[in-house]
Amino acid sequence: MTDARVAGVGLTHFGSHPERTGRDLFGQAALRAFEDAGVPREDVDALNVGNFMGSITENQGHQAPLLAEAAGLTCPATRYEEACASAGVAVREAVKTVRSGEADVVVAGGMERMSHLPTEDVTAGLSTAADELFEVRSGMTFPGAYALMARAYFDEFGGTRTDLAHVASKNHEHALPNEYAQYQRKVSVEEALDAPPVASPLHLFDACPITDGASAVVLVSEAYAAEHDVDAPVAITGTGQGTDNIALQDRDHMARTPAADQAAEMAYDDAGVGPDDVDVAEVHDCFTIAEVLATESLGFFEPGEGIEAAREGVTTKDGDLPINLSGGLKAKGHPVGATGGSQIAEVTRLLRGDHPNSEHVADAEVGVAHNAGGTVASAVVHVLEVDA
Amino acid sequence: MTDARVAGVGLTHFGSHPERTGRDLFGQAALRAFEDAGVPREDVDALNVGNFMGSITENQGHQAPLLAEAAGLTCPATRYEEACASAGVAVREAVKTVRSGEADVVVAGGMERMSHLPTEDVTAGLSTAADELFEVRSGMTFPGAYALMARAYFDEFGGTRTDLAHVASKNHEHALPNEYAQYQRKVSVEEALDAPPVASPLHLFDACPITDGASAVVLVSEAYAAEHDVDAPVAITGTGQGTDNIALQDRDHMARTPAADQAAEMAYDDAGVGPDDVDVAEVHDCFTIAEVLATESLGFFEPGEGIEAAREGVTTKDGDLPINLSGGLKAKGHPVGATGGSQIAEVTRLLRGDHPNSEHVADAEVGVAHNAGGTVASAVVHVLEVDA
Repeated sequence: MTDARVAGVGLTHFGSHPERTGRDLFGQAALRAFEDAGVPREDVDALNVGNFMGSITENQGHQAPLLAEAAGLTCPATRYEEACASAGVAVREAVKTVRSGEADVVVAGGMERMSHLPTEDVTAGLSTAADELFEVRSGMTFPGAYALMARAYFDEFGGTRTDLAHVASKNHEHALPNEYAQYQRKVSVEEALDAPPVASPLHLFDACPITDGASAVVLVSEAYAAEHDVDAPVAITGTGQGTDNIALQDRDHMARTPAADQAAEMAYDDAGVGPDDVDVAEVHDCFTIAEVLATESLGFFEPGEGIEAAREGVTTKDGDLPINLSGGLKAKGHPVGATGGSQIAEVTRLLRGDHPNSEHVADAEVGVAHNAGGTVASAVVHVLEVDA
Repeated sequence: MTDARVAGVGLTHFGSHPERTGRDLFGQAALRAFEDAGVPREDVDALNVGNFMGSITENQGHQAPLLAEAAGLTCPATRYEEACASAGVAVREAVKTVRSGEADVVVAGGMERMSHLPTEDVTAGLSTAADELFEVRSGMTFPGAYALMARAYFDEFGGTRTDLAHVASKNHEHALPNEYAQYQRKVSVEEALDAPPVASPLHLFDACPITDGASAVVLVSEAYAAEHDVDAPVAITGTGQGTDNIALQDRDHMARTPAADQAAEMAYDDAGVGPDDVDVAEVHDCFTIAEVLATESLGFFEPGEGIEAAREGVTTKDGDLPINLSGGLKAKGHPVGATGGSQIAEVTRLLRGDHPNSEHVADAEVGVAHNAGGTVASAVVHVLEVDA
């Protein structure tokens, strides 16, 4: 079996771009990925794109052929939708396709566009990732759902709003040098604590913003890279996916994310590494509590200990295990259907040494990307390794 | 490489089921597929589901975990959206996953639910498969788009409304014994001609109905089938996918479907067969003209000759090459996200000899399924073969 190697990555600026269409955004990300890879479009065998709610926000389903055209591709194109993990599954299936030998070059990524709509419409759209019958009709939206998860966590393991504010402040700090980030601005712990409440115990800076953006990565087989002299030092060596019940009420435990546990175990087994081998990670911090839960599912910390790690700075850029050096969903932004591809792009840049925050992980060899859908009813984890 | 074998298939009744939820429908199809396969749920490695517009019609995105729960599955679950070819790509990726050796048992299928909404809302929802900027905002909906394709066909190759009425009448005749069909009723050529116009030259019986329904197929590796003594005489021996520009204005030719040409070529090459080897086919007859175009893309007839074949009865149950013995989308119904899985189920039943229309293709060894999205901006073709 061949590894799937990352030949190139491309991102748009993440932010509010109401004047740009989805095809414009994805076309730019794809162009940048092709340029980074040095791989001609004609060699692309398949395109996998993630998009969550274009049929609601842009009145546009059937995004795959549209985004293929935008990227100048004529190969088979497929859309994946797994809520906020849409691009994660698009990448995962691309990895599988390359590994199977069926294709030498697959482009994976995603796009989302939301900022042109009123916030209440975006919130309603995002809520379609929850269980319509058992959550949404009761008035549940995602800030409320994650607030319940934070409360359950605090009840069982302890922790405070201040601990979560450390996550927000850290990720804003990390985003400062990232030119793709929506918010290149500092947020102190005090500012986060003073921000207005959204759904107690979560306040404004505990939540990721509304973001437009696109991501693309070019994956190639080892044979293709060798034959065409493609510089692709980073390989995706592990991929895993997990699924859980959507509705929180159907879960055994509201302060755990077993779908991510499963995805992580599968990805680690696949790569033949463990959590102790990981040097850097991008995780799905749609809310600050989500980052804490992610770091536990990934095995970096025991259940209940992720909050302490956040409090003590273990996951800062100068800590033992920097998390979300890109700024994360929190500060870099969360264009839902693009996020999973963005994480792969950011981990790749960090491992290659060309990320503005690479200096903080200069010797990093193993990176992880953790992408989740809804309240982690879906999770995709990838392990990336750079040639030592 | 192992073949992906069809261990079992399951369908709900296709029709108007406004009182049933999507999870109820898919759960029933999956249960029937498990029963047909004799494969326990615990052995399922992955679930691939097609759904086109649940986020619009049911306010429910993120369908994969929901439908996994409905099917009693805890494996990784992924939603595919490719407009009306959503389940086709879900099956295709399942085939690839089994072939790669990564999984032994994958369930693929789909679900759509529309009939609870007013027709104008369904039409608006379906139109999200067209190009929002360049078609929908100009007032284009699918009856209009296919009417343009029919006019272009008539202009170039000849053909009449009466020829298309033969397609409708044939498919209604085929649906008569199919207990899953929405319309088990005869429609004569005269009745079709007398029906009210929808978008000239297409009249009411040239269009498929609004349908709720679900489909599921259980695919297994050869090794799994042998080890567990699973009766799976039909294998999916070829899979292909093609992509084209969405907007008709961007096509070189409005009376051709090159995405389906590509998908067919890829699937035939993959299976090592050609159009002359095919004994029976289910094709995407969302409109009568679409069946004609499909039979040409599949290489059964030269461009411009499909209409003559329809007129002369070549594709009837007693003809040389029976098309849509299930009744097709036209009479069996078109629950958009389920259709591609239903076609695989129907071809499997026909080849196994347990379809109510199997008698008409008693010696059939090779079957084809052709599933298309939009005005064939996406196409998926599968070749199925039964052990001789």
